[in-house]
Amino acid sequence: MRHAILIAALLAGPAAAYEPLVEKQEFTLTDFTTRSGETIPQMRLGYETYGTLNEARDNAILIPHYFSGTSHAAGRYAEDDAAPGYWDAIIGSGKPIDTDTWFVVSVDTPVNLATGDPNVITTGPATENPATGKPWGMDFPILTIGDFVDTQKGLMDQLGIQTWHAVMGASMGGLQSYEWAARYPDRLERVIPVIASGWADADLIAWLDIWAAPIRLDPNWNGGAYYDGEAPQAGLAQALKILTLHAQSAEWSNGTFGRDWADEGKDPAASWDNEFAVVAALNAAGEARAKTSDANHFLYLVKANQLFVAGHPDEGLYQGLLDIDVPVMLIHSNEDLVFPGDAVRETGAIIKSDRTPVEIVEIEGTRGHLDGVLNIAQAGERIRAFLEAE
Amino acid sequence: MRHAILIAALLAGPAAAYEPLVEKQEFTLTDFTTRSGETIPQMRLGYETYGTLNEARDNAILIPHYFSGTSHAAGRYAEDDAAPGYWDAIIGSGKPIDTDTWFVVSVDTPVNLATGDPNVITTGPATENPATGKPWGMDFPILTIGDFVDTQKGLMDQLGIQTWHAVMGASMGGLQSYEWAARYPDRLERVIPVIASGWADADLIAWLDIWAAPIRLDPNWNGGAYYDGEAPQAGLAQALKILTLHAQSAEWSNGTFGRDWADEGKDPAASWDNEFAVVAALNAAGEARAKTSDANHFLYLVKANQLFVAGHPDEGLYQGLLDIDVPVMLIHSNEDLVFPGDAVRETGAIIKSDRTPVEIVEIEGTRGHLDGVLNIAQAGERIRAFLEAE
Repeated sequence: MRHAILIAALLAGPAAAYEPLVEKQEFTLTDFTTRSGETIPQMRLGYETYGTLNEARDNAILIPHYFSGTSHAAGRYAEDDAAPGYWDAIIGSGKPIDTDTWFVVSVDTPVNLATGDPNVITTGPATENPATGKPWGMDFPILTIGDFVDTQKGLMDQLGIQTWHAVMGASMGGLQSYEWAARYPDRLERVIPVIASGWADADLIAWLDIWAAPIRLDPNWNGGAYYDGEAPQAGLAQALKILTLHAQSAEWSNGTFGRDWADEGKDPAASWDNEFAVVAALNAAGEARAKTSDANHFLYLVKANQLFVAGHPDEGLYQGLLDIDVPVMLIHSNEDLVFPGDAVRETGAIIKSDRTPVEIVEIEGTRGHLDGVLNIAQAGERIRAFLEAE
Repeated sequence: MRHAILIAALLAGPAAAYEPLVEKQEFTLTDFTTRSGETIPQMRLGYETYGTLNEARDNAILIPHYFSGTSHAAGRYAEDDAAPGYWDAIIGSGKPIDTDTWFVVSVDTPVNLATGDPNVITTGPATENPATGKPWGMDFPILTIGDFVDTQKGLMDQLGIQTWHAVMGASMGGLQSYEWAARYPDRLERVIPVIASGWADADLIAWLDIWAAPIRLDPNWNGGAYYDGEAPQAGLAQALKILTLHAQSAEWSNGTFGRDWADEGKDPAASWDNEFAVVAALNAAGEARAKTSDANHFLYLVKANQLFVAGHPDEGLYQGLLDIDVPVMLIHSNEDLVFPGDAVRETGAIIKSDRTPVEIVEIEGTRGHLDGVLNIAQAGERIRAFLEAE
């Protein structure tokens, strides 16, 4: 019980959330062409906005989301929502991303994980293939982070925005931020990649594969064709559990759980059925998240992240980063196991090797990778100043 | 191909191996009683020795092995063996653990992983339960690191050794080393735990569960009752793959594989069948190791490691460490993801809080946890001096 309360407290945001209430919106791109040349007849995606677009349409900030995230970056859908969006601490009236000044646009990616979340609108293997009237399954084209960015460019055009004042995102949202700056340097004025580096290195590629493997081991996965039967929920829960632990830190698990047992009187030494509290909590987290998630979408997200090289993958690891010309603020944590400090610093060094200005902000905390989401307020005044600089 | 050669080179030891050729020996403990009070009618285990026991029987050094290891710590079984035992770099004539002086005893643990290795002799769920004539399966008693140590104490008595000159082991072998010093302080003169800390903390407990989970997801596991049918090799291979990656470092995976593809011309962006080289290499390593390993034994090893608290688990985390009175040398790497530097230093601080002498030796390297096995020679002269000190 103590742990359940702790987890709830850790997931909750500050009291003064962005106002007014947030409404999910949607947009559709017809005959969306992927960078690999495949066509998706209807790319339907959700988005949210906070603040007001000015007449000049030049005050917009784009926020792409992280791997297991959604476009719900700030505010509440209803007064009694348990928690506001994930970066509510820095988005709102008077906050570092001040919605009295800026118009924030946050977009659901294609193959978004949370297909069962009523506030997510996405297109992917779990949605209908118009050619068959059935879910795409693994026939859905393999997408890249570049494709995600191109859907956002489609929305940008529909909204009549020529240039983002900034693009800022955490983790996979940071990859999308690099991609924007590397590929479309004329369509943004500055970029803030958070807890992310400029390409997926072998270490990240391997860990992403470890995350995904339980899905493929689950017999219900059935090569991705499970929409008529039972979904591979056990494998998906395990995948989400690995992700959850990997995005945390030893300080968190040791500080929160220690060697406590899951149930009083049930010594893990006495039976295979008895668990330690940390394992039970991770199991519960994985199972809860699996309920609103889709296993194939998880695999597509893994692939997109593994394939990531900013900008121009065919021209090597560095070219895209060298193409970045706008000012860059990199925010990261040295306790991050997913995007370690060394990888982020190497990315920063390459970007600034041709004199592009790069600021590096380190977040201190005990939550590892997640500090980029949970403790972003630490970097608040640096973000405010970076956004307001001429 | 290049990667295969690299891996072979990385696994091979130095040319001048311990001589003479090594012979596997075995011992049996009748009616072995676990610390939890269960009885195993026949505990049969393998061991190896290097050097000669002196007349006073006071020159013996015990080396318990790591999670996926065996008692093959040094030398070769035959002239044409591909590689010598794992710590051959420090064991042999003139080497830091000088077999001209010391008599080294290395013992297979119960529930040893490598049931398919002809040179491993172990007792566990895959071996015969005399009561039924069939494999024990999950009816085999849950064992602890303390039980492993008690089997070694049984061998010690059979060999007529009253006191170990030293006990030294890596990783799970380090846990056994702490256990010896905490539980039987009168039966050893010094201890060298390598890449290991004094208890399994929540972080380690959780990661060990992540290692084990693919086995339970494999339908062939069947609650552990697979000895009459197909074994859960896919799950076991995945478990061994996670262990392999977790015991390595980002420097290793990035430096060895980068973003190379597994097969020329097969871009991972083009198909779900196409892999990155790092993933293919880890898959191959996991599958190869699974061939000689047993899935239930893997689960028993995970449980034993999760349950570990040195000495006296019922008296809290520290009591066993405070009971250590012999000089301690801790060897570790700061790049270790399995037993991080902070955990090892905390263990050292507790042991020396009552003035027990503790030396800490840091190994530098690019192999993470594995540096404690592959780069142990770095600590060679420190080990030699520690063993020779009056």
